[in-house]
Amino acid sequence: MNIKAVVFDAYGTLYDIQSVAAVTEEAFPGYGGMITQVWRIKQLEYTWLRSLMRRYQDFEIITRDSLAYTLRVLGLEYNKGAFERIMEKYLHLDLYPDAMAALAAMRDRKLAILSNGSPAMLNALVANSGLDRVLDATISVDSRKIFKPAPEAYGLIESVLGVPPAQVLFVSSNPWDACGAKAFGLNVAWIERVTPEAMRLACVKSDVVAPLTMFKAIRTQMDELGITPDHRIHALSELPALLATEKS
Amino acid sequence: MNIKAVVFDAYGTLYDIQSVAAVTEEAFPGYGGMITQVWRIKQLEYTWLRSLMRRYQDFEIITRDSLAYTLRVLGLEYNKGAFERIMEKYLHLDLYPDAMAALAAMRDRKLAILSNGSPAMLNALVANSGLDRVLDATISVDSRKIFKPAPEAYGLIESVLGVPPAQVLFVSSNPWDACGAKAFGLNVAWIERVTPEAMRLACVKSDVVAPLTMFKAIRTQMDELGITPDHRIHALSELPALLATEKS
Repeated sequence: MNIKAVVFDAYGTLYDIQSVAAVTEEAFPGYGGMITQVWRIKQLEYTWLRSLMRRYQDFEIITRDSLAYTLRVLGLEYNKGAFERIMEKYLHLDLYPDAMAALAAMRDRKLAILSNGSPAMLNALVANSGLDRVLDATISVDSRKIFKPAPEAYGLIESVLGVPPAQVLFVSSNPWDACGAKAFGLNVAWIERVTPEAMRLACVKSDVVAPLTMFKAIRTQMDELGITPDHRIHALSELPALLATEKS
Repeated sequence: MNIKAVVFDAYGTLYDIQSVAAVTEEAFPGYGGMITQVWRIKQLEYTWLRSLMRRYQDFEIITRDSLAYTLRVLGLEYNKGAFERIMEKYLHLDLYPDAMAALAAMRDRKLAILSNGSPAMLNALVANSGLDRVLDATISVDSRKIFKPAPEAYGLIESVLGVPPAQVLFVSSNPWDACGAKAFGLNVAWIERVTPEAMRLACVKSDVVAPLTMFKAIRTQMDELGITPDHRIHALSELPALLATEKS
């Protein structure tokens, strides 16, 4: 493996989308966790459904629509101000604590983001978090008008960076994204942030399943899609060593 | 509207997929509801993900994979016999109580199923429930190797029945399916089996959200996909009257 570029998923991989829970909890006390989980499930569903229906809308619209759905279904009334404060958080998500150091340690390779996010969302997020200083490119699927895991989305890496799939390491904590990238032909490192053992301990206590934790957990466990990513790591901080052990 | 054919989604529309909960509860006491919800979410996700990844596998394989995922994530051990007993239930799902009478009342039109199910699953289900006596066709997306809501799937109706989209009424209780069919150009009746008011009462009691009920509910409430089905009904039994009021 001769890795010329390391390309990252953004939401959930470099940036902690669970960090919106504090903002939703502040706006809707008692509902923060539930809103965050339903919102994320619907946000992903809408990217896949609109892609299949050939009714692409950008990720900002989908993120708004899925939040509106969540608040409606929960019967929560809100004003425009509360809605916009929650949406605004998407431009100021927390980086995972080890992200900046890991990226800095790999600057001898090309570094980029490939994300479902709209260009406006991604550019604001990358600038607000300071990642613009270490990234060579921030690539949005928007130019192809289809979301991951469609092959057209992953094909943007070669188009923009000029690096063929065999020389790209793609990094994602989203199981479906790691599988999609592998199916396309990229080298893939999947970040397993919650081990199966830890997850079961969190979900099943004294034979009682905690449904909210369970639904948070099903976004973190490897899916059964007939595809296995090349590498399974547990944090971004493991990446520099992973690259060093590969023949390059 | 000159309706020549009425075409039904199968799982969740004519057949009650929640009826697997009794079998899963028997196999895994205390986990029946949770298994049923996670299994369904993952089953749908895998149809969309595999369609986008161009890695189609038929619905039986997807149904097995999503059940295996669910039991693994919950840390439930099982033997082949228990797994097969649950899968077997998919060939013997309960018809909604009003299904047979509604279909019988519309036999002056062509009647068909258009389903994600594999031909083997659908043929067994239709025969076991006696619907083979009233249906003109049981159409599986399998011949197109892509799942709903891709336009290619809905296009099968005209290919098989010879009735153009403008003369078809498509009936589904799945919000994403109703939207996909409408986006394709079919006339669509969406079955809202759980009203928003009833759903909120079930989910939010004394300001405490019941997460398991909530996740059951998000499969029943109309999605925010920028599309509105033509008709909103609450049961299959309303269909004959709906057709009678249309100019035909």
